[in-house]
Amino acid sequence: MRALETDLYQLTMAAGYFHRGLADTTATFELFVRNLPRARRYLVACGIESALDYIEALRFEDDDIAYLRELPAMRDAMTPTFVEYLRAFRYRGDVFTVPEGTVVFGGEPMVQVRGSLLEAQMLETFLLSTINHGTMIASKASRVVTAAAGRSLFEFGTRRTHPDAALSCARAAYLVGFAGTSNVEAGKRFGIPVMGTAAHSWTMAHADEETAFANYAATFPQSTILLIDTYDTLRGAERAARIVGDKLKGVRIDSGNLGEVSRGVRTILDAHGLTATKIFASGDLNEHAIAELLRGGAPFDGFGVGTELVCSTDAPALGGVYKLVEWERGGQRRAIAKFAEGKATYPGAHQVYRSVGVDGELVDVLALADEPVPAGVRGLLERRILSGIRVGEREPVDAIRERTMAAVRCLPSRFHSFSPTESSAPSLQLSPSLVALLGEVRASVSH
Amino acid sequence: MRALETDLYQLTMAAGYFHRGLADTTATFELFVRNLPRARRYLVACGIESALDYIEALRFEDDDIAYLRELPAMRDAMTPTFVEYLRAFRYRGDVFTVPEGTVVFGGEPMVQVRGSLLEAQMLETFLLSTINHGTMIASKASRVVTAAAGRSLFEFGTRRTHPDAALSCARAAYLVGFAGTSNVEAGKRFGIPVMGTAAHSWTMAHADEETAFANYAATFPQSTILLIDTYDTLRGAERAARIVGDKLKGVRIDSGNLGEVSRGVRTILDAHGLTATKIFASGDLNEHAIAELLRGGAPFDGFGVGTELVCSTDAPALGGVYKLVEWERGGQRRAIAKFAEGKATYPGAHQVYRSVGVDGELVDVLALADEPVPAGVRGLLERRILSGIRVGEREPVDAIRERTMAAVRCLPSRFHSFSPTESSAPSLQLSPSLVALLGEVRASVSH
Repeated sequence: MRALETDLYQLTMAAGYFHRGLADTTATFELFVRNLPRARRYLVACGIESALDYIEALRFEDDDIAYLRELPAMRDAMTPTFVEYLRAFRYRGDVFTVPEGTVVFGGEPMVQVRGSLLEAQMLETFLLSTINHGTMIASKASRVVTAAAGRSLFEFGTRRTHPDAALSCARAAYLVGFAGTSNVEAGKRFGIPVMGTAAHSWTMAHADEETAFANYAATFPQSTILLIDTYDTLRGAERAARIVGDKLKGVRIDSGNLGEVSRGVRTILDAHGLTATKIFASGDLNEHAIAELLRGGAPFDGFGVGTELVCSTDAPALGGVYKLVEWERGGQRRAIAKFAEGKATYPGAHQVYRSVGVDGELVDVLALADEPVPAGVRGLLERRILSGIRVGEREPVDAIRERTMAAVRCLPSRFHSFSPTESSAPSLQLSPSLVALLGEVRASVSH
Repeated sequence: MRALETDLYQLTMAAGYFHRGLADTTATFELFVRNLPRARRYLVACGIESALDYIEALRFEDDDIAYLRELPAMRDAMTPTFVEYLRAFRYRGDVFTVPEGTVVFGGEPMVQVRGSLLEAQMLETFLLSTINHGTMIASKASRVVTAAAGRSLFEFGTRRTHPDAALSCARAAYLVGFAGTSNVEAGKRFGIPVMGTAAHSWTMAHADEETAFANYAATFPQSTILLIDTYDTLRGAERAARIVGDKLKGVRIDSGNLGEVSRGVRTILDAHGLTATKIFASGDLNEHAIAELLRGGAPFDGFGVGTELVCSTDAPALGGVYKLVEWERGGQRRAIAKFAEGKATYPGAHQVYRSVGVDGELVDVLALADEPVPAGVRGLLERRILSGIRVGEREPVDAIRERTMAAVRCLPSRFHSFSPTESSAPSLQLSPSLVALLGEVRASVSH
């Protein structure tokens, strides 16, 4: 399953390790984001569950192997013994991850893979792909949730991203607090709420707006939400109120000066006694626009957010990396670090301990995985796969959502600013053992 | 197949059209980008073939219908007759598209859908999703191809986008002129070349760089390309030349001052007589960086491009829309236009005629689909689906690639500038018949 959804170099390296007798080297890799994008003050780890599903299911099918045997770049290496190895391949090592939805900062491992060098290396591309994408979307969505200050949010972005990516976006948005998505397949697949009304084309396909509204209400008498801005929004509000009356659950406005128009619409609805009828906004919204509307007192009950969310337009790429931090073979163990500016990595396998100082500040400590656990804290990284087998319960999506929302809400307030910044993350502290190891490695790399 | 990968409102509208007797209204929808992003001077239409595959295969499966019957927002409308309708649903109308890889500008339809209002509306979300994404990536990739001025380009971005989106990115990049991709599944699925070498972890998993190089060369004696920047790039080049000798096909440099370092590497390789050994660059490259390297005379033979390509970071969202332009029922025909500033659409079903003026300038004319074809030009929109059945041959991916590359190369030079612009597109001319219709519609919408 999905074994070829990877960069070719994972397979050339696998062949190399196999043929050169290095397959049984034990290695630890860690997946983390070195530095947050300027427009992000925290990240919400997402894609972890999809990564675990991949690791469990990873197999080479017959047609994958047939393809590799014909591929010029691999042909040299596809000997009968290596083909046998690939046929029997599965990931047999351990995997530790932070729980889906965990708030993380630069330099903090979200995933730690410990296994044979060959097997652990093979996971790199897919893990980066699914976690970079998921975390990028969840982190953007979480800012929108903060901006909406309790109003309902709907993910509307399917049309502005790849069809399959859209499903992951809907899930990521829900995990951090969106109320639901317009993507029906995402609703079916992940068990999350689905919502939607009608498009402008509905209104324009009728002879006039009155008929369009009456026809919609007749079809969905229990859930009549009307899009009222096709011609003139205030006239649309008046017509909706008149035609549907107190069965009008809500109206949506997708254009114009949303702040001003929403007040006019509220007045019209209230004048018809429709004080319970909700007003929703959509149309190129993001955390900044929503915060500004609410600051100005615009009487919106909810927002649909699409393009800006699924493209994460202010931070459209997340540069998570997957780095070898340690290997061991024949009794020799080597901790790996990089010292290049901007590309530094810390040696050894790690754990992250998070605590809250007396001043309410977050304190994150990066420690070595095998040093004693500090009193009273639990490491963020938990074992999720043991010798290739998934361990622990699968957390329901609503439980992840509740946990994630609570964690974000409790962040010190400076993390909730939407302005760009160079260094908002808690400066990651290093445990004394890690500092000592770093010194040793630095001394040894003068070769 | 894939019927629920859509916005809920497509299904609520379908139910509305069905229950209110409007299902057999005939409608024409067009998919186009209103205005190009500032950082794009032309678009390359991509995702067309995937859209056609979707249209042909679109069906509601039993479990889709079961899900919709339980969905609160749909429950009212899922009567036995509508359920029967969904079970038998397929798209039975016509579809016209520009050929995959066609250069298009703002306001020019890439797809035109003519069918029953209900069926044609149902296609909106998926068509937008796959074409917005494909066109965004192909358009970015095409700029990179221009910048590389004939050097080889490799798509390396899988890890920086959603795993499934990555496959489409690899294909889109190849269509506009990339030489291949690192994504093995994309190679298998689309029949495009796959390439890759090794990662830094390969080198770091060995006791030293010499052993790492020797082990790689021993595994791939016919295709030895080495990543030489793990420790010190010039020393790496020296070691690679010494250890592999004239079987060294190429070296890759992923960090540092690429321009300067590449000259040093070239000198070292040449000094070892390895004048045929190629030098490749990677690491956050885009069209600007590549053009600058080549302007400076950096002796690179090829480039790997990842993040900037698959995230289209300078234009991370493409706002293609799918608009109702005409409907007809009971002998009444209505052409639809919008006049709102920035959201204007032209009424009626269209065709685009492209010609090249004596000054070499492109002239694109938007005409009505049913007006006589001007002498000597062919419309860009071609019939691809007739009454629900795919027509014409499936064009091989290499034929699309050749045609697309030739069309981009022949664009007037101002389209090949990489600087942002407000209005680079050929100002779309309207045919006299379209101007007349626009006047009629404008006069009629004073209601």
